[in-house]
Amino acid sequence: MKTYITASALALMATTATAQDVSQTLPGAVGRVAPALEALSNEDLFGSVWADEALSMRDRALVTFAALVTRHETGNLGAHVALALDSGVSAAEISETITHLAFYTGWGNATAAAEAAAPIFEERDINIETLPTATPDLLPYDEQAEASRQKFVQSTYGNVNQGVVDNTEQLLFLDLWRRPALEPRDRSLITVAALIAAGQPEQMTFHLNRAMDNGMTQGEAGAMLSHLAFYAGWPKVFSAMPVAKDVFESRAE
Amino acid sequence: MKTYITASALALMATTATAQDVSQTLPGAVGRVAPALEALSNEDLFGSVWADEALSMRDRALVTFAALVTRHETGNLGAHVALALDSGVSAAEISETITHLAFYTGWGNATAAAEAAAPIFEERDINIETLPTATPDLLPYDEQAEASRQKFVQSTYGNVNQGVVDNTEQLLFLDLWRRPALEPRDRSLITVAALIAAGQPEQMTFHLNRAMDNGMTQGEAGAMLSHLAFYAGWPKVFSAMPVAKDVFESRAE
Amino acid sequence: MKTYITASALALMATTATAQDVSQTLPGAVGRVAPALEALSNEDLFGSVWADEALSMRDRALVTFAALVTRHETGNLGAHVALALDSGVSAAEISETITHLAFYTGWGNATAAAEAAAPIFEERDINIETLPTATPDLLPYDEQAEASRQKFVQSTYGNVNQGVVDNTEQLLFLDLWRRPALEPRDRSLITVAALIAAGQPEQMTFHLNRAMDNGMTQGEAGAMLSHLAFYAGWPKVFSAMPVAKDVFESRAE
Repeated sequence: MKTYITASALALMATTATAQDVSQTLPGAVGRVAPALEALSNEDLFGSVWADEALSMRDRALVTFAALVTRHETGNLGAHVALALDSGVSAAEISETITHLAFYTGWGNATAAAEAAAPIFEERDINIETLPTATPDLLPYDEQAEASRQKFVQSTYGNVNQGVVDNTEQLLFLDLWRRPALEPRDRSLITVAALIAAGQPEQMTFHLNRAMDNGMTQGEAGAMLSHLAFYAGWPKVFSAMPVAKDVFESRAE
Repeated sequence: MKTYITASALALMATTATAQDVSQTLPGAVGRVAPALEALSNEDLFGSVWADEALSMRDRALVTFAALVTRHETGNLGAHVALALDSGVSAAEISETITHLAFYTGWGNATAAAEAAAPIFEERDINIETLPTATPDLLPYDEQAEASRQKFVQSTYGNVNQGVVDNTEQLLFLDLWRRPALEPRDRSLITVAALIAAGQPEQMTFHLNRAMDNGMTQGEAGAMLSHLAFYAGWPKVFSAMPVAKDVFESRAE
Repeated sequence: MKTYITASALALMATTATAQDVSQTLPGAVGRVAPALEALSNEDLFGSVWADEALSMRDRALVTFAALVTRHETGNLGAHVALALDSGVSAAEISETITHLAFYTGWGNATAAAEAAAPIFEERDINIETLPTATPDLLPYDEQAEASRQKFVQSTYGNVNQGVVDNTEQLLFLDLWRRPALEPRDRSLITVAALIAAGQPEQMTFHLNRAMDNGMTQGEAGAMLSHLAFYAGWPKVFSAMPVAKDVFESRAE
């Protein structure tokens, strides 16, 4: 595959992975069917967007992986697992991202992601003993915020189905979010990415606020939107922009 | 693949299929990449959710199949066809579910489902003569309700495109819904499951009401939401909850 | 594969491709698992919908291809590339459609489409020199309309993320939409098809108006909705109908 990465673009890359590494995610067929898309990929997406330090290479790799898992783009997931590992995401974090996304984008997306990751993990001799187990020591949590969330959900949806209410509390907020293999800020990053990629801006207010409470900056959130326009399509991001705008403005008050 | 099904969970299963059967739908790679997800699958999803009698094993298998067809999760569909057959869904019902979902989630989802089901049907020597034909004797229908539905759609959308209006009446409500190979209640079950899995709560009010008119109980509808949180992701279900709440409340008045 | 195309249906086909050609897109497994769906495909979808001259065979092939790319239905894309080529869509237009959809439905959908198209392009000895390059001479554009669009987006979203605003102007409206390998009317056709198929009616008002400004007739837009009900599912089209109705009415005033 021909590449068109300029020296200046390469110089911008501030992490271990390079635009050249990112370009490995582009299937070779693209150049034979859509040469313009190949050039745009290398010039604009890999050479410029990925190199923009408003969001770290590591975060971009994690966000992209989460978006592709959400969209069930299984054919190219292996290449993105490899890129994430080369960009500073650990195998344990990939593993935990898959577990997290099972709850936030559906079991089958997560199990298909595991199938795509398995050969990469094997290739790199990743020791299963280093991967997160089902019952780690859990992180502490904000009991007051959780009690308030639970009270709202119980009173609103308890009459619809108690199982949803109970599972949301027990499996998600008292367990999954407290598992230590992925920082809360990173869980928020992949959750918001998944919501944008799934076209669910209506669920984003709570999670973007939580993301910023967990340490994501407004600059990072904006850069994630800009990044995801390429991977989830412009319309998905334009539907998410008004929600982000409202969240940013409400926090600035 | 290791499993972690407890004896108590197995004892809860009230149908022919067991948690062990359900666990056959989990790809082996999951344990090598995300051991926590494997454990959560066996303990919480297969051992507990599937065993909850608020929705029958047969309905859970049908709902899950409909959700995966809708999400084009083709890689794992074969295992879910097998599970459905083991849970009391007949081959004719699988066949008819695929035909129904062609209209409700798109032709390509249905034809891909047929491709996934074909080897299972062959393996089990399913006789093509037992499968539904194109022109069966049709079930009677509520002519007044249909006239009212058609009048509304004609007056609202006749000026947009008459073809949509006519096809909706002729192909869907005067033919598909009246085909005898799947009970109206089961058509409603898979239609609502498809709408939740597709992230289309805005289309759910009509079909959830129809489902309950067709015999689905409120308890079953709630349990379906709880079940689909795992297979379509929590956010999809949280977007469907307000619609279900409104439908339940409007019917209680 | 058995087909049930009637002679009268064949007689209706007004282009080079025939109902027989369209029926090549149906996987053979459909007849073995869902004989009713096979019959409905041949009678109603291929024999009647595709033959309806309210939308040309060429437009139907392009719209269907765009919908399947958007839905990541990769397994059957090759057959639809072949059908599009047989229906009067040029290889250059297929190539450019893929590049366009990278921006409008996500990079991974487009690169997977390139992978599906590559063997068809090779089979037909399509010369890479005939495919659109990255830097063609660009079409003129309506500077006033673009300035107005840009002013609105800048003032609304500039504070959310300047990158999104800049990329939307530079990459999309000052470059992509002006590339000559696909008529603006056809870009609009595939963009609106992609929005319907993705379940994003909330983004459709701008693009349906633009489509009609670019020469798409109201009859064609309505026929596209009717066509896509089959390929994206009825609920997607019913969510798009109110938007189309509003656009049609606002333009009739």
